[in-house]
Amino acid sequence: MGIILIGERINGSFKDVGLAIQEKNKAVIKDWVAKQASAGADYLDVNMGAASRNPDDFAWLVQVVAEATGLPLSIDCNRLDMFRTGLKAYRDTVGERAVIINSTTAEDGKLIPLLGLASEYKAGIIGVVMDERGSPQDVDRRLELGGKIFAAALEAGIATEQIFLDPIVMPVKFMQDQAKNVLNAIQQMTMLSDPPPHISIGLSNISSKTEERKLINRTFMVMAMAMGLDAAILNVCDAEMMQAVATAEILAGQEIYSDAFLKAYRQRAGTVSAGQA
Amino acid sequence: MGIILIGERINGSFKDVGLAIQEKNKAVIKDWVAKQASAGADYLDVNMGAASRNPDDFAWLVQVVAEATGLPLSIDCNRLDMFRTGLKAYRDTVGERAVIINSTTAEDGKLIPLLGLASEYKAGIIGVVMDERGSPQDVDRRLELGGKIFAAALEAGIATEQIFLDPIVMPVKFMQDQAKNVLNAIQQMTMLSDPPPHISIGLSNISSKTEERKLINRTFMVMAMAMGLDAAILNVCDAEMMQAVATAEILAGQEIYSDAFLKAYRQRAGTVSAGQA
Repeated sequence: MGIILIGERINGSFKDVGLAIQEKNKAVIKDWVAKQASAGADYLDVNMGAASRNPDDFAWLVQVVAEATGLPLSIDCNRLDMFRTGLKAYRDTVGERAVIINSTTAEDGKLIPLLGLASEYKAGIIGVVMDERGSPQDVDRRLELGGKIFAAALEAGIATEQIFLDPIVMPVKFMQDQAKNVLNAIQQMTMLSDPPPHISIGLSNISSKTEERKLINRTFMVMAMAMGLDAAILNVCDAEMMQAVATAEILAGQEIYSDAFLKAYRQRAGTVSAGQA
Repeated sequence: MGIILIGERINGSFKDVGLAIQEKNKAVIKDWVAKQASAGADYLDVNMGAASRNPDDFAWLVQVVAEATGLPLSIDCNRLDMFRTGLKAYRDTVGERAVIINSTTAEDGKLIPLLGLASEYKAGIIGVVMDERGSPQDVDRRLELGGKIFAAALEAGIATEQIFLDPIVMPVKFMQDQAKNVLNAIQQMTMLSDPPPHISIGLSNISSKTEERKLINRTFMVMAMAMGLDAAILNVCDAEMMQAVATAEILAGQEIYSDAFLKAYRQRAGTVSAGQA
């Protein structure tokens, strides 16, 4: 039972992907599907970013990705109608394959309908611990909102292993204290139930606007894994990140140690990096 | 209050240092003093390894190191008379500078006299959580022996901030489960008192006989720091290790974030690496 890695790269906020969405360029999208799959992604996130607000474009994007891979998707947007569009396009394309709704917050107006959608589509769901009052600044509020989402999800009939709580990573450059709060929240969330829900983060936010993004990303990832993190949305094509993740899995006892394991990971990651350069 | 880094390199088990001890070659020793100091060591460990069992050689080695740096030392051996020799040589050379006794175990026959020596020399002391029954295989036994050492040290008049508990890192290749046990023990040791004693590890043992030593070392180090580790004996001249440690300190809120901080660390570490090559 290793960590669940959700590849972040099919997101319209990246210039190449944004342009590909607007130009309906399947090759660019398929290329990122293949790269992330070969790098070791367990899920592929699909997000239009600001490239389009047209549901037809989202349906197209989901379909292109779903047809190009056997991996399950993470349907990533922030409007209920768009989630419906994405989930329907996904099911129409591949049938009942696994899927994650990314994401709800703890706001009732969002949480309740999205849990309904998760139930309807037998989807996993990521619940970000914020609400109408905004993002939490401490550990307790993170746990309170995490507990609310977890309880509501169980109530809606979602299985524990389909529930992902996200304690909200904030940029260390601007809110340094929050890094430690997120780490502590992760650990306490692992004690919400036995077995606990998944705990997932959007990793890259930790290094926003810093000059050493990869170093900060992979260091925080390893710290979070030590605390019990078992899922993340991240750049799976970052070779050093993937080596660190593989090593942390071994040290946390989630994968069996072998000399060959890390070496193979290193070589595979090296290939991916070279492919990107 | 960053982590306390104890440079491991002045150890007769390394071929160059062992030979330097036998040949009384000060230059080799001084070179390692300078390299580790410039890499960011807070203490320098001094250990003869198997190079010599002669107390005069140890006195010589301690004196050479102490004269070459303003950094405090970690006097590292396993015989009471040798500790006396080392501590005396150190005091004769530099007076009352800070020093650590590395290390005692929880065995009464060793613990009580070494605590006496620590008290006499106002030294810090590292207590490794093993006794006549051997090394612990679980978290509870680590805490039991850690608690015993901590209580005995306080009883002997040693201040909390001079007490270092070592939960014993074991090779992941041969005892994979122990990695997780050490991480959990670290966290629980931080709850022994408020403020807690220091928690220190001999890091390199984690990667013994593996093919990816540096990757495993720095990944475990970051995980241990997330759990509350605040001291370690390690290779401070490993540039990637030092970047990871500096980043983990920032993410744990032990150092203030600045763009310049990590960059400077990277450059300094780069210089050290180049010097070694």
